[in-house]
Amino acid sequence: MKNGHKIISVIGLGYVGLPVAMAFNEAGFEVYGYDVNKKRINELTNNHDKTGEVKKERLHNCSIKFSLHPDILKRANFHIVTVPTPIDEFNKPDLMPLIKASKMLAKIIKKQDIIVFESTVFPGATEEVIVPEIEKSSKLSLNSDFSVGYSPERINPADKKYKFENIKKVVSASNKSALKIIQETYAKVVKAEIYLAPSIKVAEAAKVIENTQRDLNIAFMNELVKIFQALDINTNDVLDAASTKWNFLPFRPGLVGGHCIGVDPYYLIHKAQQVGVIPDLLISARRINDTMSSHFAKNILNVLNNKNFSISSSKILILGVAFKENCPDIRNSKVIDLINELKSFRINVDIFDPVVDIEDTKSQLKIDLVKKPKNDFYDIVVIAVPHNQFKKMGSVNIRKFCNDRGSIMDLKNTLPKSQVDHTV
Amino acid sequence: MKNGHKIISVIGLGYVGLPVAMAFNEAGFEVYGYDVNKKRINELTNNHDKTGEVKKERLHNCSIKFSLHPDILKRANFHIVTVPTPIDEFNKPDLMPLIKASKMLAKIIKKQDIIVFESTVFPGATEEVIVPEIEKSSKLSLNSDFSVGYSPERINPADKKYKFENIKKVVSASNKSALKIIQETYAKVVKAEIYLAPSIKVAEAAKVIENTQRDLNIAFMNELVKIFQALDINTNDVLDAASTKWNFLPFRPGLVGGHCIGVDPYYLIHKAQQVGVIPDLLISARRINDTMSSHFAKNILNVLNNKNFSISSSKILILGVAFKENCPDIRNSKVIDLINELKSFRINVDIFDPVVDIEDTKSQLKIDLVKKPKNDFYDIVVIAVPHNQFKKMGSVNIRKFCNDRGSIMDLKNTLPKSQVDHTV
Repeated sequence: MKNGHKIISVIGLGYVGLPVAMAFNEAGFEVYGYDVNKKRINELTNNHDKTGEVKKERLHNCSIKFSLHPDILKRANFHIVTVPTPIDEFNKPDLMPLIKASKMLAKIIKKQDIIVFESTVFPGATEEVIVPEIEKSSKLSLNSDFSVGYSPERINPADKKYKFENIKKVVSASNKSALKIIQETYAKVVKAEIYLAPSIKVAEAAKVIENTQRDLNIAFMNELVKIFQALDINTNDVLDAASTKWNFLPFRPGLVGGHCIGVDPYYLIHKAQQVGVIPDLLISARRINDTMSSHFAKNILNVLNNKNFSISSSKILILGVAFKENCPDIRNSKVIDLINELKSFRINVDIFDPVVDIEDTKSQLKIDLVKKPKNDFYDIVVIAVPHNQFKKMGSVNIRKFCNDRGSIMDLKNTLPKSQVDHTV
Repeated sequence: MKNGHKIISVIGLGYVGLPVAMAFNEAGFEVYGYDVNKKRINELTNNHDKTGEVKKERLHNCSIKFSLHPDILKRANFHIVTVPTPIDEFNKPDLMPLIKASKMLAKIIKKQDIIVFESTVFPGATEEVIVPEIEKSSKLSLNSDFSVGYSPERINPADKKYKFENIKKVVSASNKSALKIIQETYAKVVKAEIYLAPSIKVAEAAKVIENTQRDLNIAFMNELVKIFQALDINTNDVLDAASTKWNFLPFRPGLVGGHCIGVDPYYLIHKAQQVGVIPDLLISARRINDTMSSHFAKNILNVLNNKNFSISSSKILILGVAFKENCPDIRNSKVIDLINELKSFRINVDIFDPVVDIEDTKSQLKIDLVKKPKNDFYDIVVIAVPHNQFKKMGSVNIRKFCNDRGSIMDLKNTLPKSQVDHTV
């Protein structure tokens, strides 16, 4: 054993876990990677990362042992948990993936092992929910037998500039000696500052407010869209002018989907309500962002109506279904809500997204993507996700999809305003 | 006449108007300055600017003619209106200062004159409210006889870095030729970019959202204080950790007073409601920020109670009453609400603020400031405004005001956390 005798296991090999496992392995650590998704393990074993975060060659060159079987993790003594923390159908935190991972770990951990959680949770989750699960299943005691840490992931999918290795890392732990080991272990792979939070709760809270702050600021932009549309003012014109002020924060309106910004605030809302605080602002922000699909659908209906198209026989092309630009991730995409709202008016909707996987979209979202949009066909082409590929196509090529009376609506400030017919 | 034959009048000589008048005068323009406040005109005539924005020497060297009398403005052909736009007791926009200035201008403007409004208003105010007032009183017609522009002020009181001359300037106008003249005229004094907004409404909207965005972001911090205090987590610890993320926005909790951030959102809320949009988020933000005085008062009561002080005979020192650090402006300071709440519990409250004017505070806020706090006397010293003078005093000197059992509460992250007893 080398590198301070730490052997790493990574539980959950998605957008967060795989880059973490790669980084440790490339720094010389022995690394074991575990996931419950058989297809994902097969793909990784065959050097394919469909999230697009890790290139084939790096996977080919790595020595990570990927497996569906927990037993493989027994050799490790430093476990990093990067499973998803989604919300259920009632927008409540769904800690099941985390609890299942904890129960699994309880069976394989040994004395002196350290478990670090990177998944976003509400403050208190690690110590109040997760640790009791581990202690109960393992018959081991926190701190005397094993230690836990919390170190929030800050991976920004599809971001080429900020990666695991150069993002400042907040770490916290259940005791001081574990904190030191966690700090030293991460410092072997993270070149940026390792920040020691004073407690696990503080580190959990710090993480959950980061995305909540973004949610709130986008909600502000979306509320402005509602106000300014009613006043017949173009919101992007206003934002262009306001952005000339040195301290104006350049957010833009749009749909807020995905597994972070649209989800994390619900974790904080949930915990706040447990202690009797009703977080008006966070709830308002979520309500605004979750209703924008419906608002944009109304904008589309208005255009159809103003141009005397028959709504129920109209033909719309939606460009983009991923939750985020240049990212193949379709989880919790709010474009689906927009599509469903349009379909409820019996509008014919084609959806084109060259970045996402057609099969995944079919199986996960029950949506058929078109492989290529029709030419001279659509009444409105709606740019819903600002993929670089759409920017490269440009308005001239996108306009080819429109029929004679057709027009382009850009929901995301993707193309220059002068080149599209409708913005928000 | 020189400088494109423009002679400048500035109506309203406060934090905004005086620096504007000075800048034009120092660039060689003939400038007339008008204010309804006799004391202010007298002070300026005697080279004293009590806002602290313009030094004695600059006033002494300037050739601005300050006056209480509108007639003096008749020579000018380019009028800049910088009167306050406050809210009334119902939190509704109070456009009276703007309407009075407009009626006054209506009496003195000539054909070809241009009037530029810099005061913050809701979108539509200039064209829907102000211009009709001017046309009615003057019998002149917009665009054929006179022109208007809107160019939002972005002066940041007490900011030594961002001043009128180096802040990007958004301009808009009622017609193209006026827009060109306004652009050229401001370009003679503003060294930063002059940004041409596509319409007056867009420029008005751009301004009102700038401070609204700040209000919202501070409200988020204040909502976090409420949540985290209930969870027994120190909010500033969380913010310190979160601030290590590259895109976390480093706002801090606190009282939001003054004549901008705490006021402008009400202008936008008012206009939104007129067109049927209920801006939940903006209303929530205002509610949170306007109730923080009460929340902080409760924090103070908790400390007194936990330390077994008798609340009604306790002695509190409040450091700072200005609405903002290092700024003598006391308008709409929310520290007053905190003081009044404490007094409602019959607590003895002394208030010390070396930055503000004792006479003004007495006449405007009905509050007596102490000239010097008592030593070894107070049960709690509350730092409410983070003036540099308090930072310079440091915890050692501030602690001298405390009695044996006394402690320091820092509401604004003024001193290092380790040097105070209570933070938020």
